[in-house]
Amino acid sequence: MTNVDRMRSLFAERRSGHSLPQALYADPAALEFDIQAIFNRYWLQAGLEIEIPKAGDYITMTVGVSPIVILRNEAGGVSAFFNSCRHRGAQICTEERGHMHRLVCPYHQWTYDLTGQLLRAGRMQEDFDVKALRLRPVHTECVAGLIFISLTENAPDFTPIRAALEPLLAPHDLRNGKVAYTATLIERANWKLVMENARECYHCRARHLQLMHSFRDFTTQDLYSAPEPWMVEFWARCAARGLKNGPIRGSDFEAGRFALSDGVVSVTADGKRAVAKTLGAMGDGDVGTMWWALQPNCFNHAVGDYAFLFQALPTGPQETVVTAKWVVNKDAVEGVDYDLARLTEVWNATNNEDRWLAENNQRGVNSIAYVPGPYSQISEGRVLRFVDWYCAASEAFIANGGYHASRPMGFRTDPSQQRSANVG
Amino acid sequence: MTNVDRMRSLFAERRSGHSLPQALYADPAALEFDIQAIFNRYWLQAGLEIEIPKAGDYITMTVGVSPIVILRNEAGGVSAFFNSCRHRGAQICTEERGHMHRLVCPYHQWTYDLTGQLLRAGRMQEDFDVKALRLRPVHTECVAGLIFISLTENAPDFTPIRAALEPLLAPHDLRNGKVAYTATLIERANWKLVMENARECYHCRARHLQLMHSFRDFTTQDLYSAPEPWMVEFWARCAARGLKNGPIRGSDFEAGRFALSDGVVSVTADGKRAVAKTLGAMGDGDVGTMWWALQPNCFNHAVGDYAFLFQALPTGPQETVVTAKWVVNKDAVEGVDYDLARLTEVWNATNNEDRWLAENNQRGVNSIAYVPGPYSQISEGRVLRFVDWYCAASEAFIANGGYHASRPMGFRTDPSQQRSANVG
Amino acid sequence: MTNVDRMRSLFAERRSGHSLPQALYADPAALEFDIQAIFNRYWLQAGLEIEIPKAGDYITMTVGVSPIVILRNEAGGVSAFFNSCRHRGAQICTEERGHMHRLVCPYHQWTYDLTGQLLRAGRMQEDFDVKALRLRPVHTECVAGLIFISLTENAPDFTPIRAALEPLLAPHDLRNGKVAYTATLIERANWKLVMENARECYHCRARHLQLMHSFRDFTTQDLYSAPEPWMVEFWARCAARGLKNGPIRGSDFEAGRFALSDGVVSVTADGKRAVAKTLGAMGDGDVGTMWWALQPNCFNHAVGDYAFLFQALPTGPQETVVTAKWVVNKDAVEGVDYDLARLTEVWNATNNEDRWLAENNQRGVNSIAYVPGPYSQISEGRVLRFVDWYCAASEAFIANGGYHASRPMGFRTDPSQQRSANVG
Repeated sequence: MTNVDRMRSLFAERRSGHSLPQALYADPAALEFDIQAIFNRYWLQAGLEIEIPKAGDYITMTVGVSPIVILRNEAGGVSAFFNSCRHRGAQICTEERGHMHRLVCPYHQWTYDLTGQLLRAGRMQEDFDVKALRLRPVHTECVAGLIFISLTENAPDFTPIRAALEPLLAPHDLRNGKVAYTATLIERANWKLVMENARECYHCRARHLQLMHSFRDFTTQDLYSAPEPWMVEFWARCAARGLKNGPIRGSDFEAGRFALSDGVVSVTADGKRAVAKTLGAMGDGDVGTMWWALQPNCFNHAVGDYAFLFQALPTGPQETVVTAKWVVNKDAVEGVDYDLARLTEVWNATNNEDRWLAENNQRGVNSIAYVPGPYSQISEGRVLRFVDWYCAASEAFIANGGYHASRPMGFRTDPSQQRSANVG
Repeated sequence: MTNVDRMRSLFAERRSGHSLPQALYADPAALEFDIQAIFNRYWLQAGLEIEIPKAGDYITMTVGVSPIVILRNEAGGVSAFFNSCRHRGAQICTEERGHMHRLVCPYHQWTYDLTGQLLRAGRMQEDFDVKALRLRPVHTECVAGLIFISLTENAPDFTPIRAALEPLLAPHDLRNGKVAYTATLIERANWKLVMENARECYHCRARHLQLMHSFRDFTTQDLYSAPEPWMVEFWARCAARGLKNGPIRGSDFEAGRFALSDGVVSVTADGKRAVAKTLGAMGDGDVGTMWWALQPNCFNHAVGDYAFLFQALPTGPQETVVTAKWVVNKDAVEGVDYDLARLTEVWNATNNEDRWLAENNQRGVNSIAYVPGPYSQISEGRVLRFVDWYCAASEAFIANGGYHASRPMGFRTDPSQQRSANVG
Repeated sequence: MTNVDRMRSLFAERRSGHSLPQALYADPAALEFDIQAIFNRYWLQAGLEIEIPKAGDYITMTVGVSPIVILRNEAGGVSAFFNSCRHRGAQICTEERGHMHRLVCPYHQWTYDLTGQLLRAGRMQEDFDVKALRLRPVHTECVAGLIFISLTENAPDFTPIRAALEPLLAPHDLRNGKVAYTATLIERANWKLVMENARECYHCRARHLQLMHSFRDFTTQDLYSAPEPWMVEFWARCAARGLKNGPIRGSDFEAGRFALSDGVVSVTADGKRAVAKTLGAMGDGDVGTMWWALQPNCFNHAVGDYAFLFQALPTGPQETVVTAKWVVNKDAVEGVDYDLARLTEVWNATNNEDRWLAENNQRGVNSIAYVPGPYSQISEGRVLRFVDWYCAASEAFIANGGYHASRPMGFRTDPSQQRSANVG
């Protein structure tokens, strides 16, 4: 059985409404498939425009096995490139974030401009033509201060995502924020187990005591057809302030504003604001949480005083790196307007609790006794949407002949090596 | 060549009386085969009844890639289950040992009774039937206070093991002991190299100086046809005390009582008792050592004042976790009746010496120059029996069509992850 | 596609003058191929005669997955063996270096003489014939105090290497040196990336500031057809002292004496000698550097006062162990004639800088965007020779039917385990 046939049969045996076949959570081959079918193709929320304010500012990340650099170009826009020199392939931008007026490869100083064009290469033969080489580009899109990338040449249509997110997120003014903190977690679980965990709050009541002080548990609500009265009332109150609420969803995204617990205005230990200045024109900050999520790998919350961004990237068949960022008003001063420990306390606790859950889930899933079990139609609706999206995208990829098991020998970069590229 | 053909050819090329073909000690595929052919099928000594005295007490272990929970049920018996929730597969019992009146999955609080029946699952759709789901059972047998498990549906006949062990072990009264100490070693060697080491004392004289203070070196004795006069005399003396001696052996076990060195009554640095109270009605404790061993992965010694249990479980192609337990009279008080360092000193030293030998063996076996060498017919008889048993069991498994190379991509759980599940 | 076909197609798709196809730098299968095609066949510089002065002195190393022992035999010559006992395969010599009058396996004390003949094996059956077993030999050659080994039965002709190196190296008198220091680096990069780095100084000016204080940058010189006047003058000056200069090159080696920077007589931070006594009759020590390199895995420098030896051995698809040795006059006394920190400073810095470059190169090469890029014909000539040699050797190996993908399951020894064998 070829790897293509094997992957096809795994999706064929998948039972709707149930967790995935074991191999999709466990096998090196499945991860390689996922990188090709999902991570190298779909739009990924990659960062924030405020991370690269000036021309030459850059941030880096590794998608699958591919180092990527995202930078502010001379025209004031955002560009992204595969971060591999066209000479012998070395990484050009080697820091998690930095600044380079020209992109100079640290190996032999081959020098590119910010459009990716090779400008100079020393001591090359006379007939060598620098103009013939440029960094391979990566598609970028920016919405409301967020940066999205797609590695494939034929990137999916971004229009629906932009149309949905722009009006909802604009008031939260991420373009005038600053990243107050970044946390990185290594989770020893397949990225889909990490994301399934991130797509439901069925486990929240028992496992996230701090988070649930601020969050209402609307797991069982039908937000689209039959939202409960308190949610409708909340939406009306926010609309009166001029805020859009949603909820809205497309094939690979979902967004909406939701009420927090009574008397709570932020996701903090005591439910009070963590930051003296709000992020965006949020008045007293009592605006619930604007939540947005994209398949395959992120979810986010903007409350009145800060935004929290969560991203998961696979680094091994059973290893995932989670990056979380906290964004506050750019004029807020640490120690004056906010205390960093207080700002990050609840989500850090939540992330660590989720890490434990995902790793525990992985160990149980590896068992020879594992058989896919039934998701709750009531409280795991977003997990269902995630796995349905994943399976549909994967099957289409196979059907279109996109999958080439060109890496039959196992994930080629060992997890810990990946990690050193990912983790600052 | 398919994996099935490959395994078949490895057993075909094996030369009787010689160590195994290299791939069987080295390859990821061989480990996966072993887990299917051996560890998922044969009876494994898994623990002691005294570890789970009350209903709801449990111990956990990982066999191959499968987490298992063993518990005291409401009827006072011992039950075991695959430790994976029927919802999304999470591990239910997450500690090395613990107590749960109901088995509550930590993820979404699905709740099972101690028979494995699902009792409650919150926020599920109306047509969801809890009665339809139960934890997948694992066979258990108890003999003289020891717990054995078999993961396969058609477990091998346990009758001969029970018949052999019960009379020999009963007087040592493991049911009235307590586990005084547990040691865990990670050995970077294939589990079969660990067990070959554990099945012979050819290496003892040079490598286990402390152990050989207590042990007689009866390596070259034919205990069944022509035991030496001092052994016959020893057996007569023990029989006069009402103790059975054996030796007895079956297809996958062996047991017998053997004399210690002159003037030695326990396996301790000075040969004197480590524990003031004997384990069982052992008089002055001068009863030699009752040794028992089962294929594939354990050996044990009960001397007058304590029992020592040794178990090896593979966690990678070239990694094995060894768990050792010391059992003393349940009424013995640490610091009064025994000193823990003194109790564990000799076997801890022996285990560490053996770890070094097994790891050194592995490195040499990996060489392209390795060719199977001749075992000593005289001093490696038990190694011969181990490899003959292993090869016969494996070939029968292949012949019966039991082997499915369903995991062609390599051992799916990385060793260090396994470890965290195994090592408390 | 079989592994043989796959390797063949990788070499077929390789584009002359360009870096190698990605899989050759990244895949487990490629490493296994390299071990068979390259490391198990070609002459490897393995050590120095001065490391094993007396009969029974030995050094060990691991080539691919094979432990090797190299020793001084009773006849005063050098012998090498696969370091695996013929009993059950255990490693016999277990230290990085040591002394054994007889080679006694630590497991069961099987005892070999220094010719590898088994002399004694205790407690074996009567018909066991010790004379029938001997350690499997490894070819050795010694030139000017250097030891070379080849693992294959039909070792390549050593004559050209000897003829080239003997006259050039003899005056540097490595036979009267001592190893003052050994450094070991674990580099998370394929061994070929490590060697490509080691075969060019295109990167030196920007990355090796300390080294370039001593080194002239003769990267762009044609040393064979059109050396620059200062080099010709330097050679004449050395010839007048009775030293041979070269440069000379053969199919798999190159050697020659090259000028250091003006006023510099050694590779040290200040360009002055590190050792009061020269290594060999080098007068004031102002003799430039005698450089020699062999495919696949070493380069070396002898300056007036010390020699520096660099060797790379693969321990994983993307992991390489580099061993570096500093040799000084055997009569030089540490703390009196030389300061160890000063002696090792520049090359230690250089090695660490190169480690960073190789690891950075690997991460970039792993990208899906990687395509082989053009080497500089001017400044990467030795890299071109390295990859051309590697590809020709590999293709010949495949064409001759030498390659058997007998280890289809991945590199069988995990890197960190290898490491513990390699790193003292």
